[in-house]
Amino acid sequence: MDPEEFRSLGHRLIDWIADYRLRERDAGVYPTVEPGEVRSRLPAEPPEQPRDLLEAFAELEPLLNAGTLKWQHPRFFGYFPSNADLASVLGDLVSSGTGQLGLNWEASPALTELEEHVLGWMRDLFGLPGEFRGVIQDTASTSTLIALLCAREVASGHAQERGGLQGLQSPLVVYCSEQSHSSVTKAALLAGFGRENVRPVPTDAGFAMDPERLAAAVRADVAAGRTPAAVVASFGTTATLALDPLEAIAAVAAEHGAWLHVDGAMAGAALLLPECRPLAAGIGSADSIVINAHKWIGAVFDCSLFFTRRPEHLVRLMSTSPSYLRTEADHRTTQFRDWGIALGRRFRALKLWFLLNAEGVEGIRARLRRDIANAGWLAERVSAEPGWELVAPAGLQTVVVRHVPAGMGPDDVDAHTLAWARRINRSGKAYLTPTQLHGRWAVRVSVGALPTEREDVEALWRLMREEATVPAAGG
Amino acid sequence: MDPEEFRSLGHRLIDWIADYRLRERDAGVYPTVEPGEVRSRLPAEPPEQPRDLLEAFAELEPLLNAGTLKWQHPRFFGYFPSNADLASVLGDLVSSGTGQLGLNWEASPALTELEEHVLGWMRDLFGLPGEFRGVIQDTASTSTLIALLCAREVASGHAQERGGLQGLQSPLVVYCSEQSHSSVTKAALLAGFGRENVRPVPTDAGFAMDPERLAAAVRADVAAGRTPAAVVASFGTTATLALDPLEAIAAVAAEHGAWLHVDGAMAGAALLLPECRPLAAGIGSADSIVINAHKWIGAVFDCSLFFTRRPEHLVRLMSTSPSYLRTEADHRTTQFRDWGIALGRRFRALKLWFLLNAEGVEGIRARLRRDIANAGWLAERVSAEPGWELVAPAGLQTVVVRHVPAGMGPDDVDAHTLAWARRINRSGKAYLTPTQLHGRWAVRVSVGALPTEREDVEALWRLMREEATVPAAGG
Repeated sequence: MDPEEFRSLGHRLIDWIADYRLRERDAGVYPTVEPGEVRSRLPAEPPEQPRDLLEAFAELEPLLNAGTLKWQHPRFFGYFPSNADLASVLGDLVSSGTGQLGLNWEASPALTELEEHVLGWMRDLFGLPGEFRGVIQDTASTSTLIALLCAREVASGHAQERGGLQGLQSPLVVYCSEQSHSSVTKAALLAGFGRENVRPVPTDAGFAMDPERLAAAVRADVAAGRTPAAVVASFGTTATLALDPLEAIAAVAAEHGAWLHVDGAMAGAALLLPECRPLAAGIGSADSIVINAHKWIGAVFDCSLFFTRRPEHLVRLMSTSPSYLRTEADHRTTQFRDWGIALGRRFRALKLWFLLNAEGVEGIRARLRRDIANAGWLAERVSAEPGWELVAPAGLQTVVVRHVPAGMGPDDVDAHTLAWARRINRSGKAYLTPTQLHGRWAVRVSVGALPTEREDVEALWRLMREEATVPAAGG
Repeated sequence: MDPEEFRSLGHRLIDWIADYRLRERDAGVYPTVEPGEVRSRLPAEPPEQPRDLLEAFAELEPLLNAGTLKWQHPRFFGYFPSNADLASVLGDLVSSGTGQLGLNWEASPALTELEEHVLGWMRDLFGLPGEFRGVIQDTASTSTLIALLCAREVASGHAQERGGLQGLQSPLVVYCSEQSHSSVTKAALLAGFGRENVRPVPTDAGFAMDPERLAAAVRADVAAGRTPAAVVASFGTTATLALDPLEAIAAVAAEHGAWLHVDGAMAGAALLLPECRPLAAGIGSADSIVINAHKWIGAVFDCSLFFTRRPEHLVRLMSTSPSYLRTEADHRTTQFRDWGIALGRRFRALKLWFLLNAEGVEGIRARLRRDIANAGWLAERVSAEPGWELVAPAGLQTVVVRHVPAGMGPDDVDAHTLAWARRINRSGKAYLTPTQLHGRWAVRVSVGALPTEREDVEALWRLMREEATVPAAGG
């Protein structure tokens, strides 16, 4: 496409996106298509000849309107906030538009150096010690996989240079909270540890990892001749945003020389607030930390921030130095290709740079404080209301609730919980995500969409009470 | 950022990108900054308060102009073409702008179904058998890692559900061409196989894998009690775009039940041309194939197409089913979270959809044919010119050359090769990538930037002869 054609179409699409975001606030949150419906409305064959793009887009547009969950809707309370702030969308546009591909420093000096620089800003804003170095990955799943690969190589004396995991005598073991995100076990399995060598550690009443149980599990493995390779602590579990006690966990990891990875994908954002940092006491001892800038912080996906105090292990793990990638500047610059799985890299720091400049750090902080206050307000209402219960301590901006009609047994409460959440979701008036805790269903309310104000949380609370008390016709 | 502010700034940035691409054609290809220069011009502290974004961008803009390699320049002949067609940039803008995040079907039905649909189009356009299913990954590095993880689990009877690689008796072995991309060995090491269990198979005079040597290596391993888990064939090596003989390789893999992965990251694009498909005879027997849409085909990075005939193994490898991700539609829809490492996914099919509609399949084919003809023209000139040699058979659009002044010894030729390539690169008039073949330097000319016409290749050839014959003052 010619730059002039791009200019004219680009203006149209910028307007379309602005309108999409404006309309989004009035539209239902929930997609209005059935499985298979989008595909059934797409042409069977690809276009052989160039088409008028506006005409083609006119066919796609209704599918985009009907076939999307409105993640940035003021009444989106599902999963986690994915704010995709429009400033960061502009940063991403500049990234795509300049067509950069970071294979090494020379392939895009600005990409490399802006990433290093902005990750230094973020490290300091999170209050992490200066020895941490940062790099952008796509997701926390990948970041955690990378952490476990580092752990594997450190614990095995870099066995990848020899027989890999296949040559080890003493099996390496990974520990995590039984409430940890599914990506932790997935990463351990992908890294080759095997499910028998993953230890989900029981949690306390507040769903945070019990460090005594961790210590006991580690001792048992050591006694049996196994090697503790990694401990993954959750700073904010998925179900309830429980915060594992990092200081006590770090002590166990340090005693046994295990790599400590902190999964702060969601709640790590709270480190931007100095008043929240005591909740993460001990995080500075971690070997690696992941905090997603593409969740509550507001950058458009994907922008997962991976920090490590021991980049030399990461680089040793990832480094290849084929001739066609070697340039004169290599020894004087950071080669982010050696900081992750992918060789090619997008110019992702631009999303963060645009977001930080548009909102300002204080602007982001004010938004996070607003959300925590709104979640606190909801938690109080739920606690005070007969028939309703807080299933977990309110974790920052996540409130996990259950409605228990008088005299109803646990199986019926499960069905009831799924039914009222489903009614709310299907109504399009708000979106919530059910979750299981010790085998029983509850509903998560994750407060933090950019346009979500107190009145939206009030409206949600009214809706929850209405939908949980109607007769469950066909629920 | 408010949608109205986005609208006004978005128009400005669309214009800026159009101008960047127009200016790019007149600018030098090479970045004009020194290591550290970009960082030294960035503010030490992040902005505490919101800034006027245009004012802030005005500070960034000179760094973007000076600090980028111009990958879309008509005289970019480095690495591989990364065309970032502006139509696909618009698709990526719609992706970011709609803020979609594909965790499962319900989280974005359009994202899921457009990806399935467009990957079906691409499979057919590449002439692959209908049983292949496709998914978009970020890069070929990741795609190859996923393929080797599938291979590992199939060969071990899904050992990840037990003790992983740590519990195996018979070591699993991976085979690849000694000319394969660095990401292949990297993937094997990340997957835990260990370097001792990676076999780089020698190549023939044209740098393609020798299937006899492959068969011999496999036989030796089997005799020694090891298990052949995977064979990675290169359809287009990095150094010379050599095409491994897939049919013969597939026969060896099939005989031993090893997973056959075809790395067609770059040259796979040629499968869009029916006349090139005989070069890939046998590809339909592969278990998995990667072809990057973000290289020669023209989509903006990242858009790596991964196809597999055995998605059930991929899904078994990757699948997790935590409660908070389960929805009613799960059993009726494809869950791409189980087709890769990352849980969250961008709406990447839009880049392809925009590209295909803007260029049309015939438009893309015409461009590829133009590039192959231009590379052929250059190869003929090089062969005919005294002092110049073609180091490898011209592979589609890649020409690998060396200039050998009369009477110069091999070490001096190496220094001379690096020197003239460096002079061209530093001049900004064109960009080339040196590479090592059997320990000796040569220069790759990768033809295929979107605006590259015959006159650009002619200009490059003049420049090569000029720079290779000037006195090497200061090398």
